[in-house]
Amino acid sequence: MQREFEFSLDVRYYETDAQGVVHHANYLKYLELARVEQLRAAGHDYAEIERQGFLLVVSSVTARFHRPSRFGDTLRIRLRIDRARGARVLHSYKVYRGDELVAEASSVVACVDRAGKVCKLPDYLRLDD
Amino acid sequence: MQREFEFSLDVRYYETDAQGVVHHANYLKYLELARVEQLRAAGHDYAEIERQGFLLVVSSVTARFHRPSRFGDTLRIRLRIDRARGARVLHSYKVYRGDELVAEASSVVACVDRAGKVCKLPDYLRLDD
Amino acid sequence: MQREFEFSLDVRYYETDAQGVVHHANYLKYLELARVEQLRAAGHDYAEIERQGFLLVVSSVTARFHRPSRFGDTLRIRLRIDRARGARVLHSYKVYRGDELVAEASSVVACVDRAGKVCKLPDYLRLDD
Amino acid sequence: MQREFEFSLDVRYYETDAQGVVHHANYLKYLELARVEQLRAAGHDYAEIERQGFLLVVSSVTARFHRPSRFGDTLRIRLRIDRARGARVLHSYKVYRGDELVAEASSVVACVDRAGKVCKLPDYLRLDD
Repeated sequence: MQREFEFSLDVRYYETDAQGVVHHANYLKYLELARVEQLRAAGHDYAEIERQGFLLVVSSVTARFHRPSRFGDTLRIRLRIDRARGARVLHSYKVYRGDELVAEASSVVACVDRAGKVCKLPDYLRLDD
Repeated sequence: MQREFEFSLDVRYYETDAQGVVHHANYLKYLELARVEQLRAAGHDYAEIERQGFLLVVSSVTARFHRPSRFGDTLRIRLRIDRARGARVLHSYKVYRGDELVAEASSVVACVDRAGKVCKLPDYLRLDD
Repeated sequence: MQREFEFSLDVRYYETDAQGVVHHANYLKYLELARVEQLRAAGHDYAEIERQGFLLVVSSVTARFHRPSRFGDTLRIRLRIDRARGARVLHSYKVYRGDELVAEASSVVACVDRAGKVCKLPDYLRLDD
Repeated sequence: MQREFEFSLDVRYYETDAQGVVHHANYLKYLELARVEQLRAAGHDYAEIERQGFLLVVSSVTARFHRPSRFGDTLRIRLRIDRARGARVLHSYKVYRGDELVAEASSVVACVDRAGKVCKLPDYLRLDD
């Protein structure tokens, strides 16, 4: 699994709100997409991971919104796994439009089983520090 | 179960889009809320209905959008069960802001079991024609 | 402008609901994406169309949901412009997963100006019958 | 304006995802609702605030998710204004289901004008420290 990953998406019209810009809650969805695509790029299908009984749930997130983005914008998300061991993965993110930094974020994702109990990450999701 | 039901909701900011109005897909969510509230008013908790193994799924919907609605608007949804027997419930809806008709819709909801197989409505959801 | 268009998308995790399938309201968002991508394929940027003062708004929609779709599914949307003259565009849609028909829909999109008044489609969006 | 405010909402079905729980991005929408309702309780209509040219935009947010919540849950949001002067309002939030702490969050909201330029909060939104 590569530690760094870059992913681009086009803002969708329905992701904007009456201020004419992307509603801030949607950035959390973009971050999720970036994590899913990073897994996919590493050969891991998140749907399959869940079928194996490992659920990845966001346990915390911090985001700073520097600039608005709009329908018509292409956003580039740079994702970094800062740590992936035990039951948790720590990511940090930078969201760009061209060279402009639109948002920054970090999150902690925990691995839980179907019963919601925290469990160790499967081997293939771990990274050495 | 009463055949007719009225339900009010306030438009939420994040339900609007960059045109400044409620995104049309959100009206389908409003209709769902109205069905859930109608059940609740009749003493039926939809979460409990699902726990009993009956899932209500929308199998078709038709909607006409007559006027835009905006953040700050209170919408009143008038819901009517046109038919509820066998495995299906047919609803029709009118969405008002004050006396203005904002949207009209109709839908067919089917009852399925956990395996996705169509099944008869539980007795308490049926209505005589 | 081509009358027919095909567009694929991957179901996003957050588009599913507790039934484990894509929430029906999200199909209306998929249809919107397909319209935007059809415009783009024909060289028209919808953001630019709005800047020119033409807003395309959904005035009615009908959808039938034949099969559930899930996270992990790739959906293929076949879109057809049935008519595009005066102030309205009529589309019909078929949504497939592989060869399976997941949903069918049709919609009427109206062209309005910034004040919300219905206006003629710009020339480049019209099609001869 | 009261510094503290409490607000309850029912989880809506479409706010859940295939894990059967509320998708984490929706908590940011709940926080927004709580801010809007706090304003309303103080006699301020956010739609009117925007018409006066003051836009409140989220510039940062931090959230920790302690427990999942589900359709059928009523959530109680306790909101506190930690500071409201200059161009910024700092809120902190606790989200409860009964006595259980479901989530905690804090956010910074900035006041901007129509051009997106940071501006002073209107007097009635300021609080002495």
